[in-house]
Amino acid sequence: MTSELSLIESLRALATHDGARGLADDAAVLPFPIGRDLVLTKDMMIEGVHFLPQDPPGDVAWKLLAVNLSDLAAKGATPFGVLTGYALADSDEWDREFVAGLGRALEHFGVPLLGGDTVRMPDCAPRALSLTALGHVPPGQAPDRRAAKAGDLLWVSGTIGDAGAGLKIAQGDDGPRALLKRFRLPIPRLRLGKLLAPHVHAMMDVSDGLLIDAERIATASNMALSIRLEAVPISLPLHEWAGDDREARLAAATAGDDYELLFTAPPSRTILLNELAEAARIGITCVGEVQEGLGMKLTHNGENLPLPDRLGYLHHTRL
Amino acid sequence: MTSELSLIESLRALATHDGARGLADDAAVLPFPIGRDLVLTKDMMIEGVHFLPQDPPGDVAWKLLAVNLSDLAAKGATPFGVLTGYALADSDEWDREFVAGLGRALEHFGVPLLGGDTVRMPDCAPRALSLTALGHVPPGQAPDRRAAKAGDLLWVSGTIGDAGAGLKIAQGDDGPRALLKRFRLPIPRLRLGKLLAPHVHAMMDVSDGLLIDAERIATASNMALSIRLEAVPISLPLHEWAGDDREARLAAATAGDDYELLFTAPPSRTILLNELAEAARIGITCVGEVQEGLGMKLTHNGENLPLPDRLGYLHHTRL
Repeated sequence: MTSELSLIESLRALATHDGARGLADDAAVLPFPIGRDLVLTKDMMIEGVHFLPQDPPGDVAWKLLAVNLSDLAAKGATPFGVLTGYALADSDEWDREFVAGLGRALEHFGVPLLGGDTVRMPDCAPRALSLTALGHVPPGQAPDRRAAKAGDLLWVSGTIGDAGAGLKIAQGDDGPRALLKRFRLPIPRLRLGKLLAPHVHAMMDVSDGLLIDAERIATASNMALSIRLEAVPISLPLHEWAGDDREARLAAATAGDDYELLFTAPPSRTILLNELAEAARIGITCVGEVQEGLGMKLTHNGENLPLPDRLGYLHHTRL
Repeated sequence: MTSELSLIESLRALATHDGARGLADDAAVLPFPIGRDLVLTKDMMIEGVHFLPQDPPGDVAWKLLAVNLSDLAAKGATPFGVLTGYALADSDEWDREFVAGLGRALEHFGVPLLGGDTVRMPDCAPRALSLTALGHVPPGQAPDRRAAKAGDLLWVSGTIGDAGAGLKIAQGDDGPRALLKRFRLPIPRLRLGKLLAPHVHAMMDVSDGLLIDAERIATASNMALSIRLEAVPISLPLHEWAGDDREARLAAATAGDDYELLFTAPPSRTILLNELAEAARIGITCVGEVQEGLGMKLTHNGENLPLPDRLGYLHHTRL
């Protein structure tokens, strides 16, 4: 109990925003910008499922925040606060490092801690962490996953598959720290998302794998999608670590945890999209297109590929 | 995995609000009423800590929603949506009953499900449930726990200690269903909270115990509080079950899970407060007063009582 209370004290030190009421009230209370839409997301992370017991606690805190901000990025939203929920196990040191890491992450992204709840798990149960992120967006401007149109090109930001390789490295494989870092410390594409939002049709973040998330856009939009596997952007470190053949690219496209933006837009916007990406200093790559019909088609250098049995890493089901 | 997906399908059926985007997007997106303040709360419930494995799953869902709405009630807020986070164990039947109960509870309170996240716990780990509730309130009108003033009377709604007795009955003691129901199916005082909010100084909900929560108001407001134990409102069923002596009243005032409203206001507002309570059809009782100084003083029929070692049931620490 003592440690839970000292955890609260250290969280209080992070909650400097007026709306947090010093974490001493039942709820956070704050004004909301007039004429904006409210954007809400909530993701959980479970020890042994979404992070490894040996992951540094500060990195786990960063990731908990980053994966939620990534959802806001995909809606073009500006984050304005988070609420946290911790069901912690029994280690003061873990808790301390976690809160320190959370503080660094909140400061990095300029997002205030507004409130939450801290509970202690029964003995031996895994840590369960939850975070709710709040953002705002100009009315009607949050791109919907259901809005892909026939003829749209399918784009993805950054590079794909690094985090999947990073997970293997975290589990003991040899490999470069750059890939491990992509797994442990993802960067939500907030600036890019905000720039793109008014100009794309559908947009979402790649959390479970490029192929499974692309299929979600297709299903939600009642459209067919074709993806060119050879076009999927692969980083130099991943290329060196895993090679660049069909199998390596399939592994990258189904690995998950990329937290890149996946979006569709008419071909006429190609120049504009590239200019916006340049302004945000993140590459974007066209990897396929949206067509009338249903289902997903995968090709590699013009050759049809059967869809793999597993399109992604279903470690959680986003509502 | 199949069961997780069917759980999502049944949750989708509850998420009929436009802002939920059919639970098929990264985030919920909705307009926010112009010129209102946003009120946010997030409480977790852990199996074996906040609810019992043998509690009916539908009742657990009700309670998860009700305890969060109770926080909004204490701020005078009108709820407009919730996000859920489930880390579930392996029982399709439990999940089904839980979602059915959640549906009934959301419908009862007229609050839409806007989104959330569903994950599966590793084997044998307890269920971890989290909920974020959102409300709005006229600007500046959410009472702050820190706002008690010297001379204020301390009031509490409804009756105290029923849920504490209900917990014992849930754990196997003999006793009336009315008390068990207060433990399993608390009623957030939403209407009363909204009516009272403009006219009280400090207000919070009693979640951990009347004494510990009263002490929180005193501490947050830098004030002293005196409480008359004989004034604490005890229900007829509790009176019959536990008696009405000093020990029974101390047990009631430190038991927790009451989800009544605890508030302070100047004596000049007594008639108004009673009229508002009558309009909300819930009794309110003056149990003490706020004074200059620090700390809490407890009396019973004019006799000073030492504060008990345990002022409440610290099952979680509200941020």
